[in-house]
Amino acid sequence: MPTLITLLSDFGSRSPYPAAMKAVLVAYGQQLLVDISHDIPRHDVRAGAYLLSTIVPFVPAGTVHLAVVDPGVGTARRALIITSGGQFFVGPDNGLLLPAARKIGAPRAQVITDERLLRGARGSTFHGRDLFAPAAGLLAQGTPAEALGSPAPQIVDLDLGRGRLVRGALAGEVVYVDAFGNLITNIDAALLPPVGRRVVVRAGPRVITATVSRTYGDRPRGHLVVVPGSDGSIEIAIREGNAAARLRARAGTALRIGPPR
Amino acid sequence: MPTLITLLSDFGSRSPYPAAMKAVLVAYGQQLLVDISHDIPRHDVRAGAYLLSTIVPFVPAGTVHLAVVDPGVGTARRALIITSGGQFFVGPDNGLLLPAARKIGAPRAQVITDERLLRGARGSTFHGRDLFAPAAGLLAQGTPAEALGSPAPQIVDLDLGRGRLVRGALAGEVVYVDAFGNLITNIDAALLPPVGRRVVVRAGPRVITATVSRTYGDRPRGHLVVVPGSDGSIEIAIREGNAAARLRARAGTALRIGPPR
Amino acid sequence: MPTLITLLSDFGSRSPYPAAMKAVLVAYGQQLLVDISHDIPRHDVRAGAYLLSTIVPFVPAGTVHLAVVDPGVGTARRALIITSGGQFFVGPDNGLLLPAARKIGAPRAQVITDERLLRGARGSTFHGRDLFAPAAGLLAQGTPAEALGSPAPQIVDLDLGRGRLVRGALAGEVVYVDAFGNLITNIDAALLPPVGRRVVVRAGPRVITATVSRTYGDRPRGHLVVVPGSDGSIEIAIREGNAAARLRARAGTALRIGPPR
Repeated sequence: MPTLITLLSDFGSRSPYPAAMKAVLVAYGQQLLVDISHDIPRHDVRAGAYLLSTIVPFVPAGTVHLAVVDPGVGTARRALIITSGGQFFVGPDNGLLLPAARKIGAPRAQVITDERLLRGARGSTFHGRDLFAPAAGLLAQGTPAEALGSPAPQIVDLDLGRGRLVRGALAGEVVYVDAFGNLITNIDAALLPPVGRRVVVRAGPRVITATVSRTYGDRPRGHLVVVPGSDGSIEIAIREGNAAARLRARAGTALRIGPPR
Repeated sequence: MPTLITLLSDFGSRSPYPAAMKAVLVAYGQQLLVDISHDIPRHDVRAGAYLLSTIVPFVPAGTVHLAVVDPGVGTARRALIITSGGQFFVGPDNGLLLPAARKIGAPRAQVITDERLLRGARGSTFHGRDLFAPAAGLLAQGTPAEALGSPAPQIVDLDLGRGRLVRGALAGEVVYVDAFGNLITNIDAALLPPVGRRVVVRAGPRVITATVSRTYGDRPRGHLVVVPGSDGSIEIAIREGNAAARLRARAGTALRIGPPR
Repeated sequence: MPTLITLLSDFGSRSPYPAAMKAVLVAYGQQLLVDISHDIPRHDVRAGAYLLSTIVPFVPAGTVHLAVVDPGVGTARRALIITSGGQFFVGPDNGLLLPAARKIGAPRAQVITDERLLRGARGSTFHGRDLFAPAAGLLAQGTPAEALGSPAPQIVDLDLGRGRLVRGALAGEVVYVDAFGNLITNIDAALLPPVGRRVVVRAGPRVITATVSRTYGDRPRGHLVVVPGSDGSIEIAIREGNAAARLRARAGTALRIGPPR
């Protein structure tokens, strides 16, 4: 069975840049390449970190993740290989890789120091193709992470936060808005009130009554529901509607979910 | 040769959900995954059914199709495996799978009853990843459909309709508008008048003269043509133009193609 | 190791047409399929030719490129197989394949004359699926190009042009605008003034001062930079901004990069 390599970037799925990274991976003998998304909002490291973290629970051990959301390309920011839970993460040292790596184990980071790899990146504006893809190819071939870098005790941190209970209400924020306008939050679904309970959702100045439900399909069209999401966190949705538009919410919008007055 | 698995959904190609389904398929040992489209208009079961039906004549026997356009996720709607013409179709019982399955054989449907599969779907809002992808993975591994479900003599029907000749004019409807604005109809191309014939196309209140042609390239730019489409049905197009915009037509728009007055 | 087949078209990544071509390639036993882009602006042969040319330096020998931007489908335009630098290019005779083929060697062209292939294309509006994909599948299986066509001493030419030095200024044009609004030019990066030099960029009537930089990251946000691009030509970019919008430039816009007054 070939090794799975996932790819994530903000290059745009319409651009040729994902294909350039894949060409390099194929040249390293790789053949099982799965795009997570190349439409991360440009330079939005948090959105990329969140999406990457949703995939890692489902891939086989040995999977290599190649992730490039990299506003600092060409500056002194370092290039990392993180090992965690039997998976490998390759990308810039800006926090992008950490939430996913933490989700499945205890991350150990290497700064890429391999001279062949760094030579390819010199003078390049496209580290995805010239540095990270070759590193991912070597890892997928079985080269140990330790052979390509040196331990990095300190790396740039990024935390998607965790919603919590504050005076009887769940307080957190939107971490991602999906293509349907559903709001994915950083609040653990285990904190959800019982199914059928009426709640009030506050998103910035907006206040809308909703119902805790098992799934979107439980409620009539147009009704706001609060459900356990597909990645274990609370989602806010409107059946066959757009919750982000109705609540004017986007990534980073503060949320409160509490009892009605 | 690995088994081909096709994927179709309304999740959005920019979303991470297609990758989550692929991660599960890879965990089931699958490695030949081809996206049909993940940009089916949201909850548009007819559009999904049509696009799926365009691909099935071209894939090898044994192919597994994983299709999820599923407004009823989380309700009591059933999960199906349909076998037809040596191919397998996995998805919701809402008609999505039927036009494709009928195109290549006599569909036999199983309702998924396998307890391991149903357990994964319980409490899930993402049956594509938690129920349908594992079922597709098992089928691709060679598990017989009968081992995963029980026969479903009655399933939800969906018919894309068939245009027909009504008082000297072809009457049908638009089933799909492609990215170029070409109108794909449900009228069999075998009913097309001879090449070169002038016809009048009526789309709702709009009436435009067109020419029956072999291909788009036969006519000058900007001229409306009626051609045999790539899937055996009549298409209405404008060379280097947008027929949908000119005729204000979309999926479901009634069409008539008849002789000039 | 399976043969790499790349796919490029203007069919739209949301359409089912790329999947139809892949279904055919899989039926020919192929399993390593990489999309370059299916979102080439409709009928923009130059943009397709440019994007294809950016990938060819990175793929292994034996790679087959299937490229379809084909406003003349159904007319008398010929179908080509071009061999160059150990790679194969399949597509219409409209110049699409030439810049890529020239980049890696001395192109030799065959007009497809194989009767089985041509029969599939007769009456078809979808040569990508019915002619070019089968030809690519046969090439990937090892069929020699010469067995499928006859030598074509004259084919349609297409040249992306080369910027040059004119009275102390670099003169060229934009060949592509990427998803970030970066302008990729046809001016060789070797002609770039030394890093740190101030220059004036003229795009049509717009005149903006910029700085020659190694990479985007070298300059503050919002500052226009002129950098060596990832494909060896000069790029014009704004760090975390959109150079195309600022300069109102698009593919074909004439550019001059010269010393400040």
